[in-house]
Amino acid sequence: MASKKPTRVKARLPRGFVDREPQDLRAQARMLDTIRRTYETYGFEPVETPFFEYTDALGKFLPDSDRPNEGVFSLQDDDESWLSLRYDLTAPLARYVAENFETLPKPYRSYRAGYVFRNEKPGPGRFRQFMQFDADIVGAPNVSADAEMAMMMADTMEALGIERGQYVVRVNDRKVLDGILDAISLEGDQPRRLTVLRALDKFDKFGADGVRLLLGAGRKDESGDFTKGAELPADSIERVLAIFEADGLAGVSGAFAGHAGVDEGLRELTDIEAFCRTAGYGTERIRIDPSVVRGLEYYTGPVFEAELLFDVTNEKGEVVRFGSVGGGGRYDGLVSRFLATPVPATGFSIGVSRLQTALKNLGRLGAADEAPGPVVVTVMDRDRMADYQRMAAELRAALNAPGRPVVPVEVFQGNPKQFGKQLQYADRRGAPVVIIQGGDEKAAGVVQVKDMALGREASEGVEDNAEWRAMRAGQDSVPEAELVSAVAAILDRRRAAG
Amino acid sequence: MASKKPTRVKARLPRGFVDREPQDLRAQARMLDTIRRTYETYGFEPVETPFFEYTDALGKFLPDSDRPNEGVFSLQDDDESWLSLRYDLTAPLARYVAENFETLPKPYRSYRAGYVFRNEKPGPGRFRQFMQFDADIVGAPNVSADAEMAMMMADTMEALGIERGQYVVRVNDRKVLDGILDAISLEGDQPRRLTVLRALDKFDKFGADGVRLLLGAGRKDESGDFTKGAELPADSIERVLAIFEADGLAGVSGAFAGHAGVDEGLRELTDIEAFCRTAGYGTERIRIDPSVVRGLEYYTGPVFEAELLFDVTNEKGEVVRFGSVGGGGRYDGLVSRFLATPVPATGFSIGVSRLQTALKNLGRLGAADEAPGPVVVTVMDRDRMADYQRMAAELRAALNAPGRPVVPVEVFQGNPKQFGKQLQYADRRGAPVVIIQGGDEKAAGVVQVKDMALGREASEGVEDNAEWRAMRAGQDSVPEAELVSAVAAILDRRRAAG
Repeated sequence: MASKKPTRVKARLPRGFVDREPQDLRAQARMLDTIRRTYETYGFEPVETPFFEYTDALGKFLPDSDRPNEGVFSLQDDDESWLSLRYDLTAPLARYVAENFETLPKPYRSYRAGYVFRNEKPGPGRFRQFMQFDADIVGAPNVSADAEMAMMMADTMEALGIERGQYVVRVNDRKVLDGILDAISLEGDQPRRLTVLRALDKFDKFGADGVRLLLGAGRKDESGDFTKGAELPADSIERVLAIFEADGLAGVSGAFAGHAGVDEGLRELTDIEAFCRTAGYGTERIRIDPSVVRGLEYYTGPVFEAELLFDVTNEKGEVVRFGSVGGGGRYDGLVSRFLATPVPATGFSIGVSRLQTALKNLGRLGAADEAPGPVVVTVMDRDRMADYQRMAAELRAALNAPGRPVVPVEVFQGNPKQFGKQLQYADRRGAPVVIIQGGDEKAAGVVQVKDMALGREASEGVEDNAEWRAMRAGQDSVPEAELVSAVAAILDRRRAAG
Repeated sequence: MASKKPTRVKARLPRGFVDREPQDLRAQARMLDTIRRTYETYGFEPVETPFFEYTDALGKFLPDSDRPNEGVFSLQDDDESWLSLRYDLTAPLARYVAENFETLPKPYRSYRAGYVFRNEKPGPGRFRQFMQFDADIVGAPNVSADAEMAMMMADTMEALGIERGQYVVRVNDRKVLDGILDAISLEGDQPRRLTVLRALDKFDKFGADGVRLLLGAGRKDESGDFTKGAELPADSIERVLAIFEADGLAGVSGAFAGHAGVDEGLRELTDIEAFCRTAGYGTERIRIDPSVVRGLEYYTGPVFEAELLFDVTNEKGEVVRFGSVGGGGRYDGLVSRFLATPVPATGFSIGVSRLQTALKNLGRLGAADEAPGPVVVTVMDRDRMADYQRMAAELRAALNAPGRPVVPVEVFQGNPKQFGKQLQYADRRGAPVVIIQGGDEKAAGVVQVKDMALGREASEGVEDNAEWRAMRAGQDSVPEAELVSAVAAILDRRRAAG
């Protein structure tokens, strides 16, 4: 009964979360830098809000929440107030702007990068923590600002190495969709409006025929599951499908001209198109497309989406178009949830984690994000650890200068008993150079400096262990005073070899 | 009754959290870069774990928790398991290493930076989200690794611009304190051991006399509040106070030599001292000090603390020594909570947010972290917005090259009605140059390019508005084709002026 066996805790990641490794992190840092630079060339300034907000300040704007708390992680504070982790970077910005409205310059241009959290049902490819990088202009009443956002999104894609033709920024206007829904007599019928919007959003997946079913009686998928439709009359369905015509603007104005909301939306889209074309952004970069549906409920005007056009193989082995890596739009009501005055605003969000997956697929993350291996000082004689540490400190100081790439230098800190393990470790870490000094070398005042790459090359033609040891491939004996220059010479050689 | 007044949400930060502004963020980015570089020169690699862990995986190691959940933010998942936000970066690392033990190189050197969360009672200067930057070596059994950590901490302080003499890394060994507590017959008496440790930790605050009271009957503070003491016998108290002697090592070995734990701890400290001195780190940088008490419960051997030695004025207006900005130690048991094998490890954490406050006090955060103001293209004629955006796009492309500092360029996106407000905005944003093109200029094929700094200087000697307008201080009319070169010339002049 009283046997006190230690209860072992199981080491496991929580569902829906991931750990991230060096190459992945370096690639992300490089991406964030590029995005930041692009936003800054447009005059945007950084701001950061905390991970928590009061739940009421965040509001409930998430699409398709199949979870309690509307997909948000929430907990109650000791004063009974509810706190939530941010689910995007726009709702917290609205709170920040409202709280600091008097002191901010207006228009207020700001950017923010950071993790956001969604309390999703965990599943393959569904993450509960992911990174976004947002830019917003608050206090910008004209659609020229929305056009600028679309242009900046296009510039960001190219800055990240996505070539023209591999992406497009598609622009729509929430007023067009709202006007269309009014025109087919769904005014005030919120549930059916939502069903229609969700159906339209499935065009890429199911095509015109699938959407036709979803707008009508409903659609049965391959597994036999039935999705109830919006039950629109047949003529309404055909009118609505005009948004998917090759020239969507013409299609929509043909089908819905004269409906106030639609007309205003189309006017805005025409203006945006003119702004983009005049500034030199052609249709291959920014395209007006009345079929863009953005899920978030707070948009009030233009909405935009950056889409990647190349195909990838998804986790089910299907070849699909990569699709959206970010989007945004005008949200004139979000800041004024807090204030008595109307505050027009527009902005967008780039899904950094998703975009990184895309860049990996494109082969855009590569050698530049590989870490340089460390110079490893081995421990031949454990009583001389202090000397090895001094050697490492000297090398570290001599080989590293501000503004130059880092040259890592370390002493082997594991159990030094088996020397072979130290060399294995160095090899494993991709060490370019290994330093060895045993008793004989110490007595002679020399150090062995081993060029690991040379050693690897030489060892390929070698038949047995004894021969290899005898030739001491890539290994040079140098006077202690020449240690730094000998290591520097090998590093230079390796750098030149590429 | 049915009057539908919109319920306004109050815009307010949750208690214990802060928003962060551009200069602050730029300074932090620069700090993180410097720390990262330093850690990388020692062969450490990045890793990132998520913000959430299973509550049982984090464990309960926080000191002085006066809150439910032991100071941790926790919530229950839909499968009934409990999740917690990380309260430090060490416990999640232990989980990561245990989960990936087979595939990681050993020793495993890694660093991580990120926000951690403490569910503290909010109060002045107490934050519930703050940033740490950690480095750890897992699989390093010898105190040479602890010595290396202390040296790296010292290097990091100097890399950040804290001069030698303004900081010290103090090193102690948990075995010494544990041995002393055993020696004064507190073996197994956990509550009193804790009371003694807390009392010793107050030496900086209350001095020897105050600690003497806390180790004995107790201490009454100025407000009359009484803190119960550890009720040690008088001779034990005097023996324990040996840790505060000028040469603590000598003091402790005088008072406690022969006690197994103390002896082993002192041996480790002597070794660490030798490692540091041989590698060139003197007592002004790293000091053995048996009075260092680190709060976290998981330490098992050497512990260290980086302390800033200069005085600052705290929020109560008192002049105090700035104190600790980071610390760490050996935690041989933390990874093996998950595994059957023992896994020795050592590491430390730098309190980035706290260190940033310190650097601000030292005047080390300054001009370098100020953002350059944007070139502002004003809107004289709202119908020509597309032209202004084209101008901005041209300037942006021409003035920005990879690897060069960013030159922000923006069109005024606020309401363009009052031109004066546009100039006020440009001034407010610190714009170096403003671009103006009205109808007359357009007809003449020219653009007005205004050097804002020159305008400010000139306007100082000017008496009235009319005179100022007439002289159009700093304002040049240039042909449209020369816009880019005219702006570049002003920016070069400003950069040269400094």
